[in-house]
Amino acid sequence: MSVTTKATIASFGGKLLKLSHAATSTQCEMSFNLYLPPQAFQNDTKKIPVLLYLSGLTCTADNCSEKGFFQHGASKKGMAVLYPDTSPRGLNLAGENDAWDFGTGAGFYVDATQAPYDAGYNMYTYVTEELPAVVFGAFPVLDAERVSITGHSMGGHGALTLFLRNPGKYKSVSAFAPISNPINCPWGQKAFGGYFGEELRDTKWKEHDATELVRKWKGGPLDVLIDVGTGDNFYKQGQLLPENLEKAAQEAGVEGIKVRYQPDYDHSYYTMATFADDHVEHAAKYLFA
Amino acid sequence: MSVTTKATIASFGGKLLKLSHAATSTQCEMSFNLYLPPQAFQNDTKKIPVLLYLSGLTCTADNCSEKGFFQHGASKKGMAVLYPDTSPRGLNLAGENDAWDFGTGAGFYVDATQAPYDAGYNMYTYVTEELPAVVFGAFPVLDAERVSITGHSMGGHGALTLFLRNPGKYKSVSAFAPISNPINCPWGQKAFGGYFGEELRDTKWKEHDATELVRKWKGGPLDVLIDVGTGDNFYKQGQLLPENLEKAAQEAGVEGIKVRYQPDYDHSYYTMATFADDHVEHAAKYLFA
Repeated sequence: MSVTTKATIASFGGKLLKLSHAATSTQCEMSFNLYLPPQAFQNDTKKIPVLLYLSGLTCTADNCSEKGFFQHGASKKGMAVLYPDTSPRGLNLAGENDAWDFGTGAGFYVDATQAPYDAGYNMYTYVTEELPAVVFGAFPVLDAERVSITGHSMGGHGALTLFLRNPGKYKSVSAFAPISNPINCPWGQKAFGGYFGEELRDTKWKEHDATELVRKWKGGPLDVLIDVGTGDNFYKQGQLLPENLEKAAQEAGVEGIKVRYQPDYDHSYYTMATFADDHVEHAAKYLFA
Repeated sequence: MSVTTKATIASFGGKLLKLSHAATSTQCEMSFNLYLPPQAFQNDTKKIPVLLYLSGLTCTADNCSEKGFFQHGASKKGMAVLYPDTSPRGLNLAGENDAWDFGTGAGFYVDATQAPYDAGYNMYTYVTEELPAVVFGAFPVLDAERVSITGHSMGGHGALTLFLRNPGKYKSVSAFAPISNPINCPWGQKAFGGYFGEELRDTKWKEHDATELVRKWKGGPLDVLIDVGTGDNFYKQGQLLPENLEKAAQEAGVEGIKVRYQPDYDHSYYTMATFADDHVEHAAKYLFA
């Protein structure tokens, strides 16, 4: 459970820590970043809540740390931000590095059931269990009882599905350009086909699909903030399908999924930087309730 | 004078334009970025002032556009941000690409006098004359009479020297981790040695050295905001020498050079992101006076 500190970077009055640890669930050394706001360094007994940010395809923990602008809002609110990596690294499994949208950098926040990926592609367990245990163990200033979740694209899918699969575990959820219905888009079909296999299309696939999870949601009204740019090429290509999520919610009578279609915004970190403060505000409403 | 638009990216309610044009002074196609704040798209007759941001060694216009977060403050103030490139590109001069701190990506905002660099390494003329003529010609919404200047590292050197060499041209100046006394640091000596030659050490070198320029400043009190991180390795290595600038100002009786030594902050864009709002605020005080 020991954590290695690779860098400590001053940022918005707090510190961005670049960390790594030997992970059991993913069978490799995993890098992650943790932003501790200035309030974490004050000598009082108040614990700091955490916003868990899940990155998109191809990203490491660094992309959003540098370009997402979450530290700006988090430093004002007194919120930590935890940035995990997007997959195991260096397992040397067959096909792992053949595509940018599968394997390395593309773990999709599921536990693979199909060989060879069941050997380490367990990002669901990693993010929901192992990483929090490590982080809250190593940083007692953080409040394990107050965690919210957000993410971008593949990480937006992760945020929505982790929230919907674990009622009460996260205080709130939001997403940027989430892959909202992976079983019906090329990225999701490729990932779930590789990690689960075709034969689990009616079981595992649906259990990790936000639109399918909303259909079965029994937890009462939601308050989900989602931003999707109308200039996002992946949205236009049908990879994101937020309308399917909205429709499923409406049909199931689930209230509170609010998709803001942002005119002209694209799939990049420019969009996240623009709306990061809003998502921090959304999380703060629940983390500091 | 025609400008090619390579990308239009929504950012903080405005648009970040990736542009290029065929430049005479640098004898090549030059890329640059221009952030137009939301106020530039309102149908009124108010012109928009401009903050000119000069980048550091190795950077293009994109680094600060993505990671510096000047757009955050600029969008609120109604200020455009102009991001030029740091050198000509692709001239294929001997030695141009041999080092990261000289030649490509390292124009130092001077007009070279020594062969082969006098053929195109004219970033001083490019930034002070040609680029503004192109930009104000192509974007009449911008106010050519209200321009402030800032920059990082080599670009901090550029901001200080362009301001001090051209009294009245820029409404205000600020800098992040500026190379403050290039004639006395390795980066500056290498650059000036290459662009000017040893024989101009007492003339051209000093004419582009902020510390030397402050010694001769006759323009009255200044108001210069400078941030330097105490965790900046290049500061520790003596590449920045802000103390020399402060000392020269004190000896010359020039008031208003304020260096904020920011504890633990490094030379990265994490530092700029943290203090970008302050520098936008500093510029706004003069641009909207």
